[in-house]
Amino acid sequence: MTVKAYGAHAADQPLQSLDIARRAPGAHDVQIDIAFCGVCHSDLHTVRSEWAGTLYPCVPGHEIVGRVSAVGAHVAGFAIGDLVGVGCMVDSCRHCADCADGLENYCDGMVGTYNGATADAPGHTLGGYSERIVVDERYVLRVRHPEQQLAAVAPLLCAGITTWSPLRHWGAGPGKTVGVVGIGGLGHMGIKLARALGAHVVAFTTSESKRQAAEALGAHEVIVSRDADAMAAQAQKLDLIVNTVAAPHDLDAFLNLLKRDGTMVLVGAPATPHPSPQVFNLITKRRAIAGSMIGGIAETQEMLDFCAEHGIVADIEMIRADEINAAYERMLQGDVKYRFVIDNATLAA
Amino acid sequence: MTVKAYGAHAADQPLQSLDIARRAPGAHDVQIDIAFCGVCHSDLHTVRSEWAGTLYPCVPGHEIVGRVSAVGAHVAGFAIGDLVGVGCMVDSCRHCADCADGLENYCDGMVGTYNGATADAPGHTLGGYSERIVVDERYVLRVRHPEQQLAAVAPLLCAGITTWSPLRHWGAGPGKTVGVVGIGGLGHMGIKLARALGAHVVAFTTSESKRQAAEALGAHEVIVSRDADAMAAQAQKLDLIVNTVAAPHDLDAFLNLLKRDGTMVLVGAPATPHPSPQVFNLITKRRAIAGSMIGGIAETQEMLDFCAEHGIVADIEMIRADEINAAYERMLQGDVKYRFVIDNATLAA
Repeated sequence: MTVKAYGAHAADQPLQSLDIARRAPGAHDVQIDIAFCGVCHSDLHTVRSEWAGTLYPCVPGHEIVGRVSAVGAHVAGFAIGDLVGVGCMVDSCRHCADCADGLENYCDGMVGTYNGATADAPGHTLGGYSERIVVDERYVLRVRHPEQQLAAVAPLLCAGITTWSPLRHWGAGPGKTVGVVGIGGLGHMGIKLARALGAHVVAFTTSESKRQAAEALGAHEVIVSRDADAMAAQAQKLDLIVNTVAAPHDLDAFLNLLKRDGTMVLVGAPATPHPSPQVFNLITKRRAIAGSMIGGIAETQEMLDFCAEHGIVADIEMIRADEINAAYERMLQGDVKYRFVIDNATLAA
Repeated sequence: MTVKAYGAHAADQPLQSLDIARRAPGAHDVQIDIAFCGVCHSDLHTVRSEWAGTLYPCVPGHEIVGRVSAVGAHVAGFAIGDLVGVGCMVDSCRHCADCADGLENYCDGMVGTYNGATADAPGHTLGGYSERIVVDERYVLRVRHPEQQLAAVAPLLCAGITTWSPLRHWGAGPGKTVGVVGIGGLGHMGIKLARALGAHVVAFTTSESKRQAAEALGAHEVIVSRDADAMAAQAQKLDLIVNTVAAPHDLDAFLNLLKRDGTMVLVGAPATPHPSPQVFNLITKRRAIAGSMIGGIAETQEMLDFCAEHGIVADIEMIRADEINAAYERMLQGDVKYRFVIDNATLAA
């Protein structure tokens, strides 16, 4: 079947309306009529081929929510009409240790929701800036939020799980002090989730103007990272830092805020390396710098259920599909609180 | 009392024979007649003030073994004639969380065995290149090796514990594959200890000429890190890497050898930073770069007892005190298998 989508034909071209093909649902497939799709910075990187290897036409989007419109004969977990989501992946090898552990996100055979390898035309996956998607049920998530929150659920599928996974893996919760660096799409979810998990949350921003917003998101403390005295007062206070800033920056300033055995987890990858961190700051307190990438299917469902139970959604700004190019420019300026979400009904316009 | 020592009066002067004062043993002190003292790269860095803040005269040495020659009235754990050791610290604050956890090595008030703050003359601690030392019993270790092994036990007090602590903390043992990078004073102990702990040990060296030696130390596999094919064959094979190389080098080449959730622990701090590691290599497999610094008193005793039980000592080359300046030059060339140890009886010559 042919559906409307929004994508680009080349790295230097704007996104535009496209017609793309979707496969008929196979025995294990769920066909989803997409209601909303969040706009992630990775979408922009990929469309513009800022990371190597973008295949065109490129249709981005991996923060997908919608309603099931058909299911294959062997689909057990979903029925027509269900509210569902799809995140950053639509397949994986299914037999490696990572897949067995429910961490398909680390599988070497993980297939991204866009720009991944597939037998479907045109030979690479096409994402959520489209009216419909067909996905094996193993990679489909159940959405238990009320339907009126559906648009604001979309960013949970990437921004939410990307911060949830390290918060859970490194034990954020009561009695722990968690720093969140950067208050954007990822960081605003990190603050909400760390707070809801019961941690004491310290938000770090370069801008005094974001103080009130960070507090409103749930931060117990807000530190302007350019304020040397305020930073010094946080020395050795944090058990965990989730650092969402992808731009190259001084990691040592944050490493020194960790307690002994504390970890700073990087969830953004800069296009050029960060200044090299001082090894002394690691060895003198047995600190670590780690990385984390999205999350597995089981933990994504756990996160969605936790958010539904706690009434957590993203803070979003809804856009029409034909506003996506302008939205990218605003996203580059940090001019969004905190996530653009496309109303996919506008694709047909 | 006055005892013979070997030390330097300034950063640009060679070490020479000195007379230094030692306090009379206090109620909680153990007086130790030093039999042997290992020669650590930190000794050289400090004597030459390559790290900021060396106080002179500087008497290095923190791999100390000897026999108890006097004890204070309240000393409970040691008696005259006991074989004992002293490592990198002689005091700490004793009331912080690190001290409470037996990790005095991370205490902000940790007092190094040399160049640390003390009320004793001359106002900073003087180390093990000396005939005698007086140390609070809390920071004295029991040596259970046979006396004829005593010289080769000395390097366990720094090189041994520096590799033991991360091996234990990050769970080296049966079923785990552990990489040891660099085959010097630290690395040769890392190989021996990881092997004895039951891990599968992969040694990494820049030199094919070290292959047989690394195998003799206990490595199951030896990889020449300049051999791209051999390195590629180790991709995602390692659970843990203990990286003992303090010279700046490419960390990414080793990060890629870690499995998901693997950690590379740096135990050496380079004078200039390593090239900045790629964040992608961290996030794509949830890997970590951590640091570790020596070890606490309790784990140092654990390590010494483990080594006594398993017949583990360092491979050493014994020197006279007046050979120390030449030994430093050879150490800078990597020309020692694998640790110089001073025969402290030669201080009186």
